[in-house]
Amino acid sequence: MINRQWIYLACPDGALGAGHFAWREAPAPQPRDGEVLVRVRMSSVDPAQRMWMSMHSYRPRLQPGEVMAAYGVGEVVASRAPGFAPGDVVSGDLGWQDFCVTAPQELRKRDAGRPLEQLAGVLDITGLTAYFGLFEIASVRAGETLLVSAAAGGVGNVVVQLARRAGVRVVGVAGGAQKCRWLLEELGADATIDYKLGGLRAALKTTCPDGIDAMFDGTGGDILEAALPQMNPFGRVACCGAVAQYDRASAAPGPRGVPGLLVARRIRMQGFVVFDHYARRDEAEARLARWLDEGSLKPCTQVADGLEAAPAALIGQLAGANVGKMLVRV
Amino acid sequence: MINRQWIYLACPDGALGAGHFAWREAPAPQPRDGEVLVRVRMSSVDPAQRMWMSMHSYRPRLQPGEVMAAYGVGEVVASRAPGFAPGDVVSGDLGWQDFCVTAPQELRKRDAGRPLEQLAGVLDITGLTAYFGLFEIASVRAGETLLVSAAAGGVGNVVVQLARRAGVRVVGVAGGAQKCRWLLEELGADATIDYKLGGLRAALKTTCPDGIDAMFDGTGGDILEAALPQMNPFGRVACCGAVAQYDRASAAPGPRGVPGLLVARRIRMQGFVVFDHYARRDEAEARLARWLDEGSLKPCTQVADGLEAAPAALIGQLAGANVGKMLVRV
Repeated sequence: MINRQWIYLACPDGALGAGHFAWREAPAPQPRDGEVLVRVRMSSVDPAQRMWMSMHSYRPRLQPGEVMAAYGVGEVVASRAPGFAPGDVVSGDLGWQDFCVTAPQELRKRDAGRPLEQLAGVLDITGLTAYFGLFEIASVRAGETLLVSAAAGGVGNVVVQLARRAGVRVVGVAGGAQKCRWLLEELGADATIDYKLGGLRAALKTTCPDGIDAMFDGTGGDILEAALPQMNPFGRVACCGAVAQYDRASAAPGPRGVPGLLVARRIRMQGFVVFDHYARRDEAEARLARWLDEGSLKPCTQVADGLEAAPAALIGQLAGANVGKMLVRV
Repeated sequence: MINRQWIYLACPDGALGAGHFAWREAPAPQPRDGEVLVRVRMSSVDPAQRMWMSMHSYRPRLQPGEVMAAYGVGEVVASRAPGFAPGDVVSGDLGWQDFCVTAPQELRKRDAGRPLEQLAGVLDITGLTAYFGLFEIASVRAGETLLVSAAAGGVGNVVVQLARRAGVRVVGVAGGAQKCRWLLEELGADATIDYKLGGLRAALKTTCPDGIDAMFDGTGGDILEAALPQMNPFGRVACCGAVAQYDRASAAPGPRGVPGLLVARRIRMQGFVVFDHYARRDEAEARLARWLDEGSLKPCTQVADGLEAAPAALIGQLAGANVGKMLVRV
């Protein structure tokens, strides 16, 4: 049995490209005592993967030569650890590869009755990031106006849906008319802004006539800068990512208004990472699953076929190519 | 009786200058029914006064032609409102003038037994800003490392002292060797950084070898930008002001690392204004007064004599001329 892998080669100087990865075929590993062998089935494509290349964060910085890290869902094929048996469906940081050998504490057993697209998407870090960021960090309440950047992306589309079902007025920012139409017609956004048209400030005034109470931000950059002056007193910005800044050789200046506007309006900007909220993961996951089953939350996924497609899927996601959650079927 | 006043003339394009104010002498006002007449005795010089010129904030933007706004302490000389009588010592937004007529709900009755320097300084918005910002927003705990910008200023010196007495390791940033020595020798700071020497990042690494857990920031600009990469996971930045940005014609770019570093390190940046915490003012004021009486908190003030000196005192404060709390004896 062959283990196909994508190896991370070097930290990009600017934009991520296919040349930053190398294809390798190695013999499939065998689990040692206390380990589990997983056949990877569905890999989650996350903008955070680009951040892992650039800095130490909540995880050590990626080192050239490592198998490219990626969260995903797979099936246990052999186990020498208690609590796991062949056939179990599990999720974890499985990497861009066919087979992963890992310690059981790195794995989470999942509901084998659910589609892999849900288990690797809305019911994993993507949906949980939306859930905790919206309710714990942005602390959004019914009747408030929420601005969502990257609203048509994996996390963003869940944020839009969760906020709408909580009675929040939602304005989604996305690139292109197609994504905006999708947000309005399929996900029920109250208004959208196509950032590619420019005129962000004017568009924010039009779509947020009562100001912005909270922002769920995955991009940073121009959108965050344009939003800050429109924020209401005691506004909250849940900082989930900085896609606008990842593909740069050096750090970009931050948004104007930091910290002056934060003081004048008493705004709270808070970065967060989903893993910090995992003490409440079961509760959150159960709710998301119930809303999926009720039909009040749509699982919006876009699946690329084959491990070969993984680098292109990540590069495309950083350029805003996907609508909904991007996954790779391994 | 003459009421000497400083009139605010126009919003500065860049640096505040003496020409932005005009001296006026008018007859002293008389209180109407329901009003109180106050003789202003001590005026508080606050960087926020510059912000009031530039933007709507927690108070309406200053309008040219108005008496320059300023918090201060005075004595009631006539009252046609219940609860106030001649001789009462009061504080409030009394303005740059000898006499102020105001509604009783705008005034707070103060302890006439205390020096005016304390009542207008460490026991008023200056000290309370330090108290609430440190304990409620920066949420600093014993054993942590706190970075304080503008540490030798009115708010900063109180922050340094309160943090030290709470068992926090304090690194103060100030301009010039004299202020730094004062912070070390008089206020007990654990280390200082003279930002005028440059090399901020290296100095932060040296003085904060275990990273920065919390920052109390009154300046924004270069100091905030240099501090962010040194912040530890779950770090807090209490944004109290943006002195580095006030005297500019247009808004400066924000600090690099916003929002990317906020996400990776889960940093919370939060603007605050003391008035939002006034539900707990009595408790805070009583504590500050007790610490003053015990000698564990020093009232550090610098007093300019005469209302004539008010514009120069504010302009000087924005340029970092003062050590400790700047006041004007009217």
